[in-house]
Parts: sequence; C-alpha cells; structure tokens
Amino acid sequence: MNVEEQARLARQASYRLAVLPTGVKDRALEAAARALETHRQEILAENLKDQGEARRTGLKDALQKRLLLTEAKVAQMVESVREVARLPDPVGRRLMRRELDEGLVLSKVSVPLGLIGVIFESRPDALVQIASLGMKSGNAVILKGGSEALHSNRVLFSLVRDAAASVEAAFRDGLQLVETRQDVRDLLALDRLIDLLIPRGSGELVKSIQENTRIPVLGHSEGVCHLYVDAEADIPMAVELAYDAKCQYPAVCNAIETLLVHEGIAREFLPRMAARLQKVELRGDERTRAIIPALPASGEDWRAEYNDLILAVRVVDSLEAAVEHINTFGSHHTDGIVTRDGEAARRFLAGVDSSSVMWNCSTRFADGYRYGLGAEVGIATGKIHARGPVGLEGLTSTKFLLEGSGQAVADYAEGRRGFTHRDLP
Amino acid sequence: MNVEEQARLARQASYRLAVLPTGVKDRALEAAARALETHRQEILAENLKDQGEARRTGLKDALQKRLLLTEAKVAQMVESVREVARLPDPVGRRLMRRELDEGLVLSKVSVPLGLIGVIFESRPDALVQIASLGMKSGNAVILKGGSEALHSNRVLFSLVRDAAASVEAAFRDGLQLVETRQDVRDLLALDRLIDLLIPRGSGELVKSIQENTRIPVLGHSEGVCHLYVDAEADIPMAVELAYDAKCQYPAVCNAIETLLVHEGIAREFLPRMAARLQKVELRGDERTRAIIPALPASGEDWRAEYNDLILAVRVVDSLEAAVEHINTFGSHHTDGIVTRDGEAARRFLAGVDSSSVMWNCSTRFADGYRYGLGAEVGIATGKIHARGPVGLEGLTSTKFLLEGSGQAVADYAEGRRGFTHRDLP
Repeated sequence: MNVEEQARLARQASYRLAVLPTGVKDRALEAAARALETHRQEILAENLKDQGEARRTGLKDALQKRLLLTEAKVAQMVESVREVARLPDPVGRRLMRRELDEGLVLSKVSVPLGLIGVIFESRPDALVQIASLGMKSGNAVILKGGSEALHSNRVLFSLVRDAAASVEAAFRDGLQLVETRQDVRDLLALDRLIDLLIPRGSGELVKSIQENTRIPVLGHSEGVCHLYVDAEADIPMAVELAYDAKCQYPAVCNAIETLLVHEGIAREFLPRMAARLQKVELRGDERTRAIIPALPASGEDWRAEYNDLILAVRVVDSLEAAVEHINTFGSHHTDGIVTRDGEAARRFLAGVDSSSVMWNCSTRFADGYRYGLGAEVGIATGKIHARGPVGLEGLTSTKFLLEGSGQAVADYAEGRRGFTHRDLP
Repeated sequence: MNVEEQARLARQASYRLAVLPTGVKDRALEAAARALETHRQEILAENLKDQGEARRTGLKDALQKRLLLTEAKVAQMVESVREVARLPDPVGRRLMRRELDEGLVLSKVSVPLGLIGVIFESRPDALVQIASLGMKSGNAVILKGGSEALHSNRVLFSLVRDAAASVEAAFRDGLQLVETRQDVRDLLALDRLIDLLIPRGSGELVKSIQENTRIPVLGHSEGVCHLYVDAEADIPMAVELAYDAKCQYPAVCNAIETLLVHEGIAREFLPRMAARLQKVELRGDERTRAIIPALPASGEDWRAEYNDLILAVRVVDSLEAAVEHINTFGSHHTDGIVTRDGEAARRFLAGVDSSSVMWNCSTRFADGYRYGLGAEVGIATGKIHARGPVGLEGLTSTKFLLEGSGQAVADYAEGRRGFTHRDLP
C-alpha cells in the first residue's frame, strides 16, 4: 500500500473518529496503555535491535541516548497515555451561541482537524505521545518516525493501533505508520488529504518540511530568544534571570541567545552579569566590550541560535531600539524584559511581535506544561491557527451549526423578517 | 519601487500599527470616510475612465456592472467605512488569564496578524472595505485590484491612504497598492513578509492563488452545497427550503447545487419539489428519474458548482449515505438537513465535515452579516485558523504575556517551587 492509499484510508476513518464519544476514545487509550504495559519486554527487545544498529552505524551519542528505551521510560510512556485519557475532550465544546431570530440559533463548536501528519526523529516515545494526543482529539494520524528507531516504532505502533482498534474499529485505518524518506516526500504532496503537519525534531527538519509542502505546518524551526535589561531594571533580578534563561538548559528553544542592555544601566549591570555567567562565552558589540571582556560579535551573532553556553550581548539606546532589534533579528518565539517601570513593560509587551513575551521572569517558562495547557502538541511561532505553546485545542478546528424551524433567507432579504442577533449563554 | 520593497515598508509599519489605540484607528477611518465623501465627483470621474475602457475592450456585462460606481454606491462605501469604525476593536482582547504561581500571571491577548495581502477583481468598493477592515484590526495591507478598475482603485486608494496618514503617519507605509499581474506573482513569493492572503473574486482566482503560494490563504474556491431531505422531513418545509436555497440567489457560494432525498420520502417529496422549482433544470440519478422527469445526472454533476438555476438530485438509502455523499463530493462549505427527528439531525450535524451545517433552515444563511459577525472578511472552508464566515477576528492572532516578579525556571525544575495553575477572571 502506498502513502496516498494509507492517507485515503485514514481520511475516511477520520469521519468516524470525529464523532466518537469521549468514553470510547478514553477506553481506547486505556487499552493502548495496558498493551504497552503488558508487552514491555517485547518493546525493549525491539529497541535493543535499534540500539545495536545505531552502534554499528556509529549514530551520534546524543541521538543514541534519545533512542534508548528502559523499563522506566516505558512506564513513563504508559503513564503519559493515561494522562492524555484524563484530559478534557477538546472536541464538542460550544464556543459561542447566538439567536439570529426567534427559533433560529447559531452555535460554534470545536471539531477535530481531520487527518494529521506527524514527522519525528529518534525518540520512539514521541510516537506514543502524539498517537495518543491524536486519538483523544478525534483525529486520524499518519506517523513517520526516524529510521534509526525502526524496530521500536513498529512494535509501539502495532501495540497502540491493535489495542485501540479492539475498542473501536475505526482506529485500524485511522492510525497509519510510514517508514521511508520517499514516504515523507509523498506525504508532503498530499495537501488535499492532510490538514496539518507536525514536525518534531531539529530546526533543519522543520525548515525542510515548511519549505517543501503546502500543508500547514505547526511548529517552529528556530528559537532566537532575547532578554532586554531596561534602564529601570532591578539589577540582581536581571542577573538571575539572564542566568536562568541562558544556563538552566541551554539546548532548548526557549533559552536566550542575545542579551540587550539599556546604555543607562550597562556599566552597572554588565560586570555583575559577566561574573554570574562565568561559564558562558560572551560575544559583545563595541559598547559591551568597552565595559566587559567579550569576543567581538559579528552581524551573524544577532541571528544565531547557539543552543549552547554562548551569549551575544548588545548595548542599546532605548527600549524602542531593543524592540526593533528583537523584531528584526529574532524568531518570534519568546522574549523578555526586566524592568521596574510598568509603563516601559507595557510598551515592550505590546511592541514585541513574539508568541510569548515575558516581564520580570525567565523566557524558559514558555512551555505547555508550565503554562498549564495539560499537554503540549508543540510551540508554534507562526501567526495562523495556533501560536505559542499549543495544547490539545491546537488539533481542533471549529464549525458553525445553525438550527432553525423552516427559516428561508428570502423573508429577511425582502424585509418581512429581521435579525435579533442576541448572544445566548 | 518593487513589490518586495513595498512589502518591507508595510511590514515595518505593521509594528507601529499593531500598537495604535482604538481611538486613533477610528479617527483615521473617519478621515478616510470624509475624504471619500468630499471627493466623490473625482471618484466618479475616474470610474468613468474605467467604464469607457471596459466598453472599448468589450468586458463582460456582469463585470461591467460590478465595475460601475454611482453616487449611491459611493455613499454606501462611506457608510461602510463608518460602520467598520463603530465595530469593537478586535485587538487587545484578553482571551485567557491564569496564575501559574504567586506573582506569576499568564494571559493570552489578541494581536494583529501583521501584513495582509488582498487580491480582488473588478469591484472597486472591495478596496475600500478591505482597507478599512485592515486599518481597524491594526494590520498593514497590500492591495491588488483588478486591472479593469485601475483608475477607480488608484483614486480610492490615494484618498484612503492620505486621509489615514494625516491622522497617523504609519498608515502611509502601512497601506500599499500594487497593480500588475507580475506584482501578484511577486506577492505570492513573499511568504517571509506576508502573513495571510485574502483573495476576493472567482473560484478560479482563489484556486490559482492557493496553488501558487506558501502563504496561508483565507477563502474558498468552491461552494458545492447540499440540502438533505430526511425520511422524517416536514415536506412543505423541505420544499420551501429547497426553493430558497436554490432560487433566492443562485449565483452565490452558499446556494445549493445538489439535493439529496431519503428513499422513504422521495415519492411524496420529489413531485412537490419539482412543481415548486419549475424554473430549475433538474438533473437526477436513476431513482429520481423513476419518480419525476429530469435530465440524467452524470458523475460530474455531483461535483458541479452550477451557480445557476440547475440542481442535481439524488435519492439515497440513509442519512449515513447522504453524509458520505456530502463529505465525498462537497466543498466543506455549507450543507443542511430537513427533518423533524432531533436524533437524526444531531447525527447529521456531527457527521458532515463542513464549515456550516444547517438544520431546518436555508444554507443561504451562511454569511457574516446574517451570523451577526459585524463585518465579513470572507468565508473560509479550510480548517486552519478561521473557518466559516470570518469576521474581524480572522485578521488577528494571539500572543501570550507572562508577568512575573523575578521567577526563574530552575526553582520549579528543581522542586523548590510548584505551579498553582489557577484560572483568573
């Protein structure tokens, strides 16, 4: 069966999945959790095959680490499926209700998107997480995992799909696995069948997908985040926030890459920052290097995502200059200001065109779990559909329902009747 | 100046437009309305030039009619700008507020999309309407009108932009007009600068844009709408709704193209429908033609958008067969059911995958004005971003704001503090 046929089957199944009661979806999730639990030895055995292959082909250490499954990781996977089952159903929520006229009531409800394609790298636990998010939100899902996790992905997929299908047959066609690079290319061309693509992996993966498909892509390819230390910043707070945002976990997208400092506070702030961020390689503009030792920053540093203990530092004349720098060089992901001046903070929060903007707290908070969204589907930096950390509702769309009692438009067009347009509770 | 330079200027201006207070935007709209009012003779004179050109080149009658401006139409245009000024500001609404921890509050607010590209045909009043919707929602807008309305578009554009810029300078760069076909091709390639494209015109225009850009497109290229007459339909109601949905205005996207009839009611319903829809050319499947005279329907009729007094008719075995027909052959725009059976209606409303689904009322109600949205930006049949009739909020995105008092992620990651995740009013 080729990818288009798989997508067609999944699309057909999506109409049945879209109308499943919450209870059925949750029972299917519980069945999947139980299957993973029961067959954990089989999962670990298949994962061992992938690990052997990874060592033979000399896969990078970091990727080998991501590939590795353990008893504890499988237990975590099982728990994550049960957590998804406990989340509220994102489908069927009534978002609006309005009387258009007597006996003519409009409502807007949440519905599944339909068919979602997910492309991820290495981490086999991503397969289980994304399949369960898709199941809970009534979507059909086509999964493409990394080839280095082939055996792990196959066993995880069969266990989840067979268990789900034992509760509701539509899951058999509604969950699909594809495996080759050619399959991905084929997938990207199916814009008439697939509603949304979610890439999970490196910035290069996301970028190459965005550039090669007309299907909407939920995600972000870059995290060039900034912290701006305003003239009115509390200096010890600014130092600690710079430390947390750079050093607490430098490899992630919401860590900062550039520090912008108001010239009025630079002489006082920069030396204390440099002392606290000793282990960080600083790359400064001229005005920074007149105050603290730092490598010279080149133009490229303002666009760089180091994902490492490196920080670009620039002294700016004003808050407005900081905002302009961020909007020009940033990736519209997450940026923050440190200031005691509420009016300045408001200007910054309004002016910075990013999916999350922070005031007096670390950029590292930009995350679905920390935001209390229940589960994170991804962080989107585009402005269409969902933006910022995206929870389950990012896998839904809406539809209007109009319930009448025989109303024809002619009566309104010809003035025999009028609209009331009264919002209802 | 080329299109990319225009887009770059508009993009830069968009950051200033995004933070304008409502009052400034409304004053700019009022200034535009007054300029159009004052210069109406000039507008009509320029429009005469376009009309002369249209007659010389033998433009189709329907298009000539769309092109024509009159004193009354200009007055309407002026009033439409004032109406947009009176709408609530879609920007800066707080959509959510949540305490993550003591002194750490997350909110989600609506923001403008940024830069919108609008491509429309013939109707010069569309320029004014879409420019004013863009202004109200704090977006920068690039407009491309039909070449047949060149003179009208130029004068309308100058009047609106100059008036708006006299109130707030950012409108000078924030509103841009482009004119040639090559400009459109260039526009479609600017996916790094333009956030959303809105085509206003024929299905072919929309389709050709969707197929030639990676910029998200808000709109629909087809309106293949259905009415399903269930076994439990009130027959006089079904006849009147079929009449209204087909005949009240056959040229529009939310008029029906196909009538599906449950076999249990076909013998009784079809003759009465045919009598009422005398002026309509019926094209039926075999079972329809066994009951009433009709031309034979071919497979192509199920996908046809006639936009004319032609109706395809098919007898189906069940509600499920009707839903499947609609999901297979329809355009996910608007579809309806006529039935007295509430349980059947619920199955239909849930099962039909369209942006609007109607029960016992005409599909012709699917419209921003009738839905009470205040202004209609377009009707979207895609599932990403906005769906169905789209009001001003379709020109907005969201952003998260997190206001803290020095919180670092390390304290939460290392268990020294926990999240409260308490929704606030």
